[in-house]
Amino acid sequence: MLPALAAAVAAGVAPRRLGAVVPPTTMRRRRTVSASAAAAARSREDVVARMPPLAHREVMVALAGEAEARLLPSEVPDNVAWFGTASGDAVGSVDVRRGAPGSTVDFMLEAWFHRELPAGGGAIDITSLIVFLNGATDAPHFLMELIQGGPTYLVVLLDLLPRRDLPLHPGYLDRYYGATGLDGHRRNIERAPQVRPYVSPSLLVRSLWSPTAVVADVQCGELGGSAAAATLEGIVRGQLATSAMEVLGVWLERCAGGGPAPEMEAAERERMVARDRKISTTSVELNLSVNLPRMFGADVSDRVVAEIHKAFMGNL
Amino acid sequence: MLPALAAAVAAGVAPRRLGAVVPPTTMRRRRTVSASAAAAARSREDVVARMPPLAHREVMVALAGEAEARLLPSEVPDNVAWFGTASGDAVGSVDVRRGAPGSTVDFMLEAWFHRELPAGGGAIDITSLIVFLNGATDAPHFLMELIQGGPTYLVVLLDLLPRRDLPLHPGYLDRYYGATGLDGHRRNIERAPQVRPYVSPSLLVRSLWSPTAVVADVQCGELGGSAAAATLEGIVRGQLATSAMEVLGVWLERCAGGGPAPEMEAAERERMVARDRKISTTSVELNLSVNLPRMFGADVSDRVVAEIHKAFMGNL
Repeated sequence: MLPALAAAVAAGVAPRRLGAVVPPTTMRRRRTVSASAAAAARSREDVVARMPPLAHREVMVALAGEAEARLLPSEVPDNVAWFGTASGDAVGSVDVRRGAPGSTVDFMLEAWFHRELPAGGGAIDITSLIVFLNGATDAPHFLMELIQGGPTYLVVLLDLLPRRDLPLHPGYLDRYYGATGLDGHRRNIERAPQVRPYVSPSLLVRSLWSPTAVVADVQCGELGGSAAAATLEGIVRGQLATSAMEVLGVWLERCAGGGPAPEMEAAERERMVARDRKISTTSVELNLSVNLPRMFGADVSDRVVAEIHKAFMGNL
Repeated sequence: MLPALAAAVAAGVAPRRLGAVVPPTTMRRRRTVSASAAAAARSREDVVARMPPLAHREVMVALAGEAEARLLPSEVPDNVAWFGTASGDAVGSVDVRRGAPGSTVDFMLEAWFHRELPAGGGAIDITSLIVFLNGATDAPHFLMELIQGGPTYLVVLLDLLPRRDLPLHPGYLDRYYGATGLDGHRRNIERAPQVRPYVSPSLLVRSLWSPTAVVADVQCGELGGSAAAATLEGIVRGQLATSAMEVLGVWLERCAGGGPAPEMEAAERERMVARDRKISTTSVELNLSVNLPRMFGADVSDRVVAEIHKAFMGNL
C-alpha cells in the first residue's frame, strides 16, 4: 500500500483531485460554519480525558499547549475533532488550526488515536504534533510523533524538518541545527540502552529527516511485563519529555519566532514553498492515510483524511 | 578542528585560495609532466602489496578494478602515489584519475592509508573509493570508505550520494534508490548483530547520505581476540564484499552507464553542479584534511591535500 500511495502523492494526484471537488470560496465558508460549532464542543484536554491514561499523551499535551500560541481557533468539524468505530474499540481526534495573521505559523496539526487490539492484545496509541511555518521564513517545521505498540514498545519521531537542501546550505544547517545544540538532545534520547534506530519503510519519509532527527525505537521487553512498562514510562517522562520540550523551545525561539528569512529571491522562495508542499503531503498525509484505515476502517478514515486535505488546500 | 574546517570549506575559502596559487594552464602542464613519470612507477596492486595484508583492502582492490573502466591514466605525482613518515610507521597512496572524454565519469579518487600505532597498539587502516559523475547526468556518485581501527573494529560507509534534493524529487529517489533494490543491500549488511549505526560528528557529512546509505560500525569484540578478528574478517569477505559489489554493479549499470539526465533546464543543471562542488569539498577534502595530518604529520599531509585540491580544480 505504501509504495502506491507514495507514488500518487509524488505525482501530486491526491491533493489536486481533492482540491478540485470543492472550489476554495465554498470550502472556506463551509469550514467556518462547522468550525464555530466544533470549537465550542471540545478542548485538547477533553479529548485526551476520553482516552485511557498514558504517559506519552501527557507529554504530548504539554508540548501542544506550548506550541499553540498565535494560532486561530480550530476549524475542523465535530466528527473530525472526535470519532470512533461503532464497536467503540477505536477512538480518535484530529485538529488543524491555522496561524494567526502576522504569525510565521502556517498551520498546526495534531492527531490523537487509540485502538484496543482484539483478544486482550493490548492497544495501539499514536499521537502526532506537526507545526508548519509559512513562506515568511525559511526556518524548519516542527514534528513529533509517538507510536506506541503496547506498554513496553514505542517509536519516537522528533525533528525540526529542514526546508532547504542541506548540502547546498551549510549556513542554514549551522544556524538551525549546529548552533542550537539539537544534536545533544538526540544523543540524550538515544543514550538509553533500550533505544535503537527506527528505519521507515518509505525512502521518501527517510529523506525528510534532518541530521539531528530522533528516529528511534524504544523496546523495553516482552509485552505485559510490569517492570518493562515502568522502564518505558520512565524514559517517556524522563529524557524523552525533557529533550522534546527543549527541542520545542529551540523551535519556538529560533524558528517560529526567529524573524523573516534572510534575503531570498522570488524563485528561491517558490522552490521552498514547493518543497513544503511535498514535505507536508509526505509527512502528514502519507502517515495518516496509512494509519487511519488500519485503526478506524475506511468510512471514518476517508472522512477524516478528506477534511485534512481540505484544511491543507486552504493553507497551501 | 572539524567545525572550523567545515566552515572554511562551506565558505569555499580553501579551494578558491589553493586554485589561485597556480593558473589553470600552468597547472595542467605541470600535472601532465609528473603524471607520465608517476603512471609508470606503480599500480594499485603494487601499492597494496607494500602494505600489510588485510581482507578489507582485498575487497577494495576488487571494487576499484571494477570501477576504473573509462578512466584516463593517473595524473598525480609519485610523492602522492606513494608517501610515508620518516620512521616508516605510516604509509599511504592517493590517486586521482579523470573520466575519459565522452564518459559520464568526472573523476575517481582512491586513497590507501596504513599507520602502525605506538607500543604494539595495532594499526589504523583507511581505504576510500569515490567516483564522481559529471554534469552530463544527474545520477548519483559512488562512495565507499572502510576505516579500520584494529583487527576487530571497522567503520563502513557505502552509498550512492544523491545529486538532487530528494524530498523535491521523489521520481529520482524511486529511479535510483527504490527500483534498484539498494535498501536490500543496506539491510543485508546491517543484519549482523555486530553492526551498529555510525554517526558522523559532522552534521554536514550526515546530510550527504541517501536514505539507503550504509553508515555503520562493526564491533566484533576486544582488540586482539583471534575469534573476534576472524568474525570481522568473515563479515568483510562475506556480506560486506557481496553487497558492496552489488551496489557498485547497480551504480555502473544505472548511474555511470545510465545515459544523459532527463530534460534538465540550464539553471537546474547549474544548481546540480554547484551542489556537486559542495558534496566533493565536504566528502573528500573534509575527510582527507582531517585524517591525513593525524596519520602522517603536517608535511606529508599538506603536500597530498594540495595535490588533491589541484586535481579537483582541474575537474570542477
